[in-house]
Amino acid sequence: MADFIQPRTLKGFRDLSPDQAYRRANLVRALEDVFRSHGYAPIDTPAMEYAEILKGKGGETSDKELFEWTDKGGREVALRFDLTVPLARYVAEHQGKLTFPFRRYHMGPVWRGERPQRGRFREFWQCDADIIGPETATADAEILVLMIDAYAALDVGSVTIRVNDRRVLTGMLDKLGVLDAAVPVLRALDKREKLGDEVSRLEIAEVEGLTESAADRILDLTRKRANDDETLAVLKDAVGDNERGLAGIETLERARELVAAAGKPASSLVIDPGIARGLDYYTGIVLEAQLDALPDIGSVGSGGRYDDLAGLYTKSRLPGVGCSVGIDRLLAALDELEAGGRGAAPAVLVTNPGDERLPEAFRFAAALRAAGISCEVFPDTAKHKAQMRYADKRGIPYVVTPDEGGTFFLKRLSDGATRTCASGADAVGWIAS
Amino acid sequence: MADFIQPRTLKGFRDLSPDQAYRRANLVRALEDVFRSHGYAPIDTPAMEYAEILKGKGGETSDKELFEWTDKGGREVALRFDLTVPLARYVAEHQGKLTFPFRRYHMGPVWRGERPQRGRFREFWQCDADIIGPETATADAEILVLMIDAYAALDVGSVTIRVNDRRVLTGMLDKLGVLDAAVPVLRALDKREKLGDEVSRLEIAEVEGLTESAADRILDLTRKRANDDETLAVLKDAVGDNERGLAGIETLERARELVAAAGKPASSLVIDPGIARGLDYYTGIVLEAQLDALPDIGSVGSGGRYDDLAGLYTKSRLPGVGCSVGIDRLLAALDELEAGGRGAAPAVLVTNPGDERLPEAFRFAAALRAAGISCEVFPDTAKHKAQMRYADKRGIPYVVTPDEGGTFFLKRLSDGATRTCASGADAVGWIAS
Repeated sequence: MADFIQPRTLKGFRDLSPDQAYRRANLVRALEDVFRSHGYAPIDTPAMEYAEILKGKGGETSDKELFEWTDKGGREVALRFDLTVPLARYVAEHQGKLTFPFRRYHMGPVWRGERPQRGRFREFWQCDADIIGPETATADAEILVLMIDAYAALDVGSVTIRVNDRRVLTGMLDKLGVLDAAVPVLRALDKREKLGDEVSRLEIAEVEGLTESAADRILDLTRKRANDDETLAVLKDAVGDNERGLAGIETLERARELVAAAGKPASSLVIDPGIARGLDYYTGIVLEAQLDALPDIGSVGSGGRYDDLAGLYTKSRLPGVGCSVGIDRLLAALDELEAGGRGAAPAVLVTNPGDERLPEAFRFAAALRAAGISCEVFPDTAKHKAQMRYADKRGIPYVVTPDEGGTFFLKRLSDGATRTCASGADAVGWIAS
Repeated sequence: MADFIQPRTLKGFRDLSPDQAYRRANLVRALEDVFRSHGYAPIDTPAMEYAEILKGKGGETSDKELFEWTDKGGREVALRFDLTVPLARYVAEHQGKLTFPFRRYHMGPVWRGERPQRGRFREFWQCDADIIGPETATADAEILVLMIDAYAALDVGSVTIRVNDRRVLTGMLDKLGVLDAAVPVLRALDKREKLGDEVSRLEIAEVEGLTESAADRILDLTRKRANDDETLAVLKDAVGDNERGLAGIETLERARELVAAAGKPASSLVIDPGIARGLDYYTGIVLEAQLDALPDIGSVGSGGRYDDLAGLYTKSRLPGVGCSVGIDRLLAALDELEAGGRGAAPAVLVTNPGDERLPEAFRFAAALRAAGISCEVFPDTAKHKAQMRYADKRGIPYVVTPDEGGTFFLKRLSDGATRTCASGADAVGWIAS
């Protein structure tokens, strides 16, 4: 054996196969179309940033998971671990040139040195859309409509957006006289679905200053109800005249009204007082998206409102609201739903008829492509049988064989239907149908 | 002043503004459509690889330019500097699962720690398409047709693909009895356009074993002629009965014939015996793409045939041919041609009519989007004048103002034309026209 370098990827990293990459590209394009249809413009930022830009923003966990090193010029650098910190840096750096309200989307890979586990990778994609500037329920509602439109454009079945407002939760705690306990309580609530009511209850009851009856009360107030009207009634009762709580409820009511005005089905949005989102920086609405067919796969998107995006880099206060679509979970869902297609193969293989008649094959293929039908000519000399085997292996649905005498023999592999055509243009109707 | 972290990118790195990112996304999508129409399927590979995978393949220069470090698990890792080495690793690793001929495209960022200079960045995109397996002129011709189709799908005017075959050059040198000097001669030829005939001549004359008259002869044989027929006649004469040279000429003739059969204009392909391509691994055709409107911007794409893709990782010999479209140079060209559009703005702004009538605005916007018209509602309360100023600043062409009484006032900002509509659906014809 010669000394070969073992071809392999790093632990926690992976290649995307043609089918996987094809599906991801299609998800990305569909999302891009929706984002653009709502007036969001793309930006891109470098994968590498000064480490100081990325550190201290995402909390201790992300610092530990950062891929960081000293480059050959002696700079401390790191790979971005999300697209929010680069957005913050971008807006702070370019704010003089940007037009506010500033709507942007950004899709690309991010890197985290997490302990590898099933379905989690050290390189994964994020697809974010945010609107920076307005502190209004209008902007919140816009993000909800955007998310509903986004999932509707994908091949993943119906999706429910679960929405809450952090101020309802904190208003409620304020009313119960335990506002100081807000952070640990929100964290415990966030894990409720994963760990169950009982664990959550114990965790909440352990929070300093909380009685067991307060824990029970919190768990009851934040559970799912039969419908939004009932939920809102319970929440209104719970927050009473607490201003913060009332503002949250008003935002949820407003969002619901505007989502309905945009013609979205009532079932696409559910007010769920148990949605807390672990991240500390959310201050208004918080949201999670769930596939109705695969609720157990977990959230396939999330988002919320924040008070100040870029406080680390600028004195300008930059409030905003945004969402992030979970592309990698959606890819896993497509696998499970057997949706998204193999699709990476072209529609037609034109077999190689030998050197002399190869120009006819090239002409035929070009005519199909001009009509929007993807097509390849077998690029090597091989027995006809071997070429048919190739078509079958790749899942190419149609095979065209140049005949003697300038005609073409067409075969649909799914049912064996055949036809003879004089040219590529002639074949278009049959193949497209 | 508080202690802010200075928001900035690393030296040699850059952000893409909304307009730039919009243009790049459009280039990428157009290329993706063309690649797919030819039966190419996408793959993706990680940005990070084991350093040993990436080292020693691209030559000393790329090793020096590698971003490499030791990760927290003690592994020597690096960022990919092109998409060809990852393709080699990918094919070697997964060859048992792949169907050959294997056509793949791959688009994404790569990283090189080059000395920053105008128009060169340390992070840039590559867009590659390759076909692995066949050693045929058919596959070579397919890559040429693919490249011609690719540029035709972009908004960059007419493009000339200049093609040569390395074997013609080496056959010619063989015939002159100076085959040993092939590598330095090819390198000198490669720089001819940049440095001029005289410098090239001196460089060639300095190659060991070459007389000045041989240098003159090489320069003469490899200069551009009036047309391909003349070029081919000169080259045939020069290679005589040299087998390698004849194989090269036959490939060029075949490629020309098949490109014409695919209906491509004769002007899109030119045989240019001076094209050498500096990279050592090309063994057959070599090609470069040039914008007819901006020849001085340099090559906007290149490619060629190689004997063995993945010899470092596997004993399987994997010949192939491929091309790489220079996205970043094309973006610079779009800037210079003032093409590609600003485009990142939506078609319509619906102004914010105040809380009470906001649902009407959301309904109107949804109807436009359903008809494929991009649209945003101003998400904040602001004077009507300020909202108009925003539309103007972002370059939004239409503004819709919800009127009292349920109608909508439409204005086209380019010419001030106006209209009144009852609903979004009602407005579609006028806005789309």
